[in-house]
This record gives sequence, structure tokens and C-alpha cells, in this order.
Amino acid sequence: MIAVLSGGVGAARLLRALSIVTEPSKLAAIVNVGDDLVLHGLTICPDLDTIMYTLAGLNNDELGWGLRGETWRVMQELDALGGAAWFQLGDRDLATHLYRSERLSSGATKSAVTRELCERLHVTVRLLPVTNDVIATEFETELGRMSFQEYFVRHHHDVTVTAIDVTGVEQSRPTPEVLHALTEAERIVIAPSNPLISIEPILRVPGVREILRVRRADVVAVSPIIAGEAVKGPASRLLGELGHEVSCIGVVDFYDGLVGTWIIDERDAARADEVRARGLRVVVTTTVMSEGDNAHRLAEAVLQ
Amino acid sequence: MIAVLSGGVGAARLLRALSIVTEPSKLAAIVNVGDDLVLHGLTICPDLDTIMYTLAGLNNDELGWGLRGETWRVMQELDALGGAAWFQLGDRDLATHLYRSERLSSGATKSAVTRELCERLHVTVRLLPVTNDVIATEFETELGRMSFQEYFVRHHHDVTVTAIDVTGVEQSRPTPEVLHALTEAERIVIAPSNPLISIEPILRVPGVREILRVRRADVVAVSPIIAGEAVKGPASRLLGELGHEVSCIGVVDFYDGLVGTWIIDERDAARADEVRARGLRVVVTTTVMSEGDNAHRLAEAVLQ
Repeated sequence: MIAVLSGGVGAARLLRALSIVTEPSKLAAIVNVGDDLVLHGLTICPDLDTIMYTLAGLNNDELGWGLRGETWRVMQELDALGGAAWFQLGDRDLATHLYRSERLSSGATKSAVTRELCERLHVTVRLLPVTNDVIATEFETELGRMSFQEYFVRHHHDVTVTAIDVTGVEQSRPTPEVLHALTEAERIVIAPSNPLISIEPILRVPGVREILRVRRADVVAVSPIIAGEAVKGPASRLLGELGHEVSCIGVVDFYDGLVGTWIIDERDAARADEVRARGLRVVVTTTVMSEGDNAHRLAEAVLQ
Repeated sequence: MIAVLSGGVGAARLLRALSIVTEPSKLAAIVNVGDDLVLHGLTICPDLDTIMYTLAGLNNDELGWGLRGETWRVMQELDALGGAAWFQLGDRDLATHLYRSERLSSGATKSAVTRELCERLHVTVRLLPVTNDVIATEFETELGRMSFQEYFVRHHHDVTVTAIDVTGVEQSRPTPEVLHALTEAERIVIAPSNPLISIEPILRVPGVREILRVRRADVVAVSPIIAGEAVKGPASRLLGELGHEVSCIGVVDFYDGLVGTWIIDERDAARADEVRARGLRVVVTTTVMSEGDNAHRLAEAVLQ
């Protein structure tokens, strides 16, 4: 089994590539739930849904999020009513949130609901929310404290961040399936997701960081920073704002003590020695997954 | 001001007719919330919405419920996911429920949310949920206890009922606006809604029945039973199952002590003397509102 610590889009692409070069049911994605929110009474899990839709082949490549063939009837009407339509929920996507919300209110766990949805969508990669407890990533910013989605969607992550907090995480517990996957996996992969807002909330669930520390020889991480830039999203800006070097080396040091092998991009080849100098193994390859061939090559590198 | 105790469709039609023959802003509908439910995390208020949509001219006449020009994308997807799609929520209609659920979770009252929605939809009749507390009409049936919507929608009210209960109603309070409307209205109208499942939950909110008893001389009721049959829904069957005479006289006796003037249909003219024999005034007219002229005539009768 391969366990993959996962955020949204970057993790989804890596998991899709991995599920082509290996048996999907041997992949366990341990997914961030710090971005989850309750909006309009509905429980929404952006990272779980992004991965699920991508693995089901239903992802909307034009938008970069959500479902293909999406329609927006409900949002148009909500906007006409003066409702909060800044968080766009497509009509197809809404069905996922209605399903999840109804099952959660019937007492089902997020893990169980995720399993049910994946069965319906024929996703055989095992999607594991890191915890069934409610945790919430929040941002201290120049405009005050705000939730993840206010920061990310409403303000388009265009606001200066001074600190990131994950409320509820100290009291949360990883699910038994997550503990099993982390303990039994022959390899643990850290996907090229945002270290600060996608991976850190997973690591902060009690027990997760400790297991990685013990198993660091089996941990492979893919740098989400290439030549000082993130492929997508605010990772590079946030690293800088929060005092980290904005480079693959900044990420290597951020995960200090948790990773045995690094995969960095060809464009960062000149920095491979700095990784080795830290006593770590390093693989240099193409890590941008926007082209199918690259994703395949990266997946092979991760599994090697 | 005219206060109208209101259920769903029958009340909506009477209110629409009244709002043509009198100034809409002088009409206060005191609306049943015993049918309200939480489904998929969303708070749904069927009677409030039926009245609101009808008064906004947005009601779907073909279906007899919901919005015209409705689409069903979300429900189709929910059904494909294996979700509970027995309670059909159209895409346009869902926007109302998302709006309401978000506002309620922000701490707004049902009264305030109803006012906001009515403003958006240019409804000037004042729609007043009888209470902002949660009450729920439930049915003891041959198949066990069930919620209103299980009885009404899931089982198409085709199941034998032995008792009706309204949970939470003893602890509920009418809103200040409702008390004001009942106290100040020059006339209180009981709409031709189902006496047992639409009007009774309103009457059971502490204070409402007592005010009607005191003001009975000003209370006008329209019989929902015509020649032993309800125009729509399970009123006649329920009256029989719960030991009432299935006729306009059965309804007159059900509201014993609360009504001063009865409006009964021409087809029940032969029973007018029985109403008078109870010391009540009676007006005989056409009460079926499916034709515009009749509705107008009924509205005039109510206001006379």
C-alpha cells in the first residue's frame, strides 16, 4: 500500500498518475479537511471532492475546480435573492454536498460518506479524510482573522497573512483507517500540495507527524515549489510571508525530520546538493503534471 | 388589517384573491410551520414558500407546488449518487432553501428571513411564521410514527392515521408580530386549509387559540370541505379517521368556540341552517378558487 498525504489539485493529479502506473486500490489518500466548511447549512469538503472528481474523470479542466458539464442554476437564483453567492457551487456539485450533509446529519462519519460517494463514482483509490473531527484552518491577515474559504475564495488569497492556525486540531484524532495506512504503507508520499495550508493541517492531527518522523526513511516528498514558484495557488507567497525561503529548499526545511527522499524539478537541479547535504536522498525529474507524460514520469519516480 | 391563519395551497389562493380586492400590505398571513423540515442540512418551509411563490406569481400551476420554469439538475445528480431524492427540490427552489439556511445559521429568525425573501420577490402581503421556535407535526399511523413529509410526500398521505401530534408546540411562543396581528386585526380569517394539519398546529401555539376564542365575533372561517370532499389533499380522509364528521359541519364543530361567521359552499347550502342552529352566522357562496371569478367572489365574501 502507498499512503499519500493530500491537499487538492496537486494531490489529485499525482494520485491520478499513480493510479495509472499502479493498482488504484493499493493507494490510500490521506486528505486534508482543514478547508472544509459549512455554508448554507451544507458541509463542503473541497479537497476530498477535488480528488474524488479528478479520479472519477469528472473534473472540470477549464475551471481548474469542480465538475465538467457543470451548470449554475441554483447559484444564479441565489444571487438574485441576494444570497451569499461568492462561493460558487454548481448544480451537479451541490448534489454531492446535499448527499454528504444528509448522511452526516443521520450520524454517518465523513469517512463513511466519502466511501459511499467514491463507490457511486467508481473511484477505487481509497480516500481517507485525516480525521472525522471538525478542524478548521484560519488565517490571521492584514484584514483580520478569516476562514480558509474567505481567504482563498472571497479574497482570492490576495491578502497578507501573518499566521495560520488550525482550530480544533489538538483535540482531533486521526481515523483508524488513517493510522493503519500510515503504519502499514510500504511508502508514504507527501503530495506537491501547499505545505502550509494543505499538508500542515494533516501533520498537526495528533499522531500523524510522530509516525512520519519514525518512518522518515519511507517518506517521499514532491516539492510543490519549482524555480521559486508554485505551479498554482498561494504557496510561494505564503512561504515568504511566514519566514520561509521561497524555494524547494524552503520546503525541504519546512518538512525537516519527516522526509527521507525528495523529488525536485529539473529546473532546481542546481540545488540537489543542498538537499543531499542535509543527509537526504534526492531525485531530480520533471514534476509539472500538466502534461500527461510528465505526470507518468513523476508517478514512476515516486514509486521507484 | 386582516389576519389570515394559513396553511399551503388553499391559503395561498385565498390570499392572492384577497390581495386583489384589498391593499396587500394590510394582509398579514399567520403561517403554519409544523410542516417545516431539515433535509440535506437545509431548512425547508413548505407552507411559507407556497404562499410566497403564489403571491409573487411564481407558482407552478401544472405541478400544483413549487416554482414555474423549474429545473431539476441537482435532484437528478442526487438520485444518481443514491441520495434521498423522494422530496423533490427544484434548482430554483433550492436557492430559497440555501438562502434561508445560511441566514438561520447566522442567527437570523425565520420571521426575519421570510421578510427578506418577500422583499426580494416583491411580496407585500406580510408573511408571518406563527412561531420562530421549532415545532414539528408528526403522525401516528398504521406503519408507525412518521414526520409530516414522510406522511405527506413519501407515502402520498395514503396511510391510516390514528393520531396527530405537534412536537415542541407547548414550549413554543408566537412571534410578537403574530400576537400584534391577532390582537389588532379588524378581522381574523381561517383559510380553507387542512384543519387538522395546517390550522391546528397554529392554534396550538400558546396564546393563539385563546385570542381567537376572545375575538370569535371577528373570526371568519372558510370551509375546506365541500359536499363531503376536500378540494385537495387528505383533509376529508383525516377528518373521518380521527372521528369527525366528513362535512362542512364536521369542520364547524372542529373549530367550536373560535369562529363567528362561516363561509360554506353553495353545494352545502342545505346545511346552512345547522350552522345557524349553533348560533353562528353563515354565508353561502362559491368557495372553489380554481376559477378566477370564484376566488374574487370568495375574497369579497370574506371581507364583507
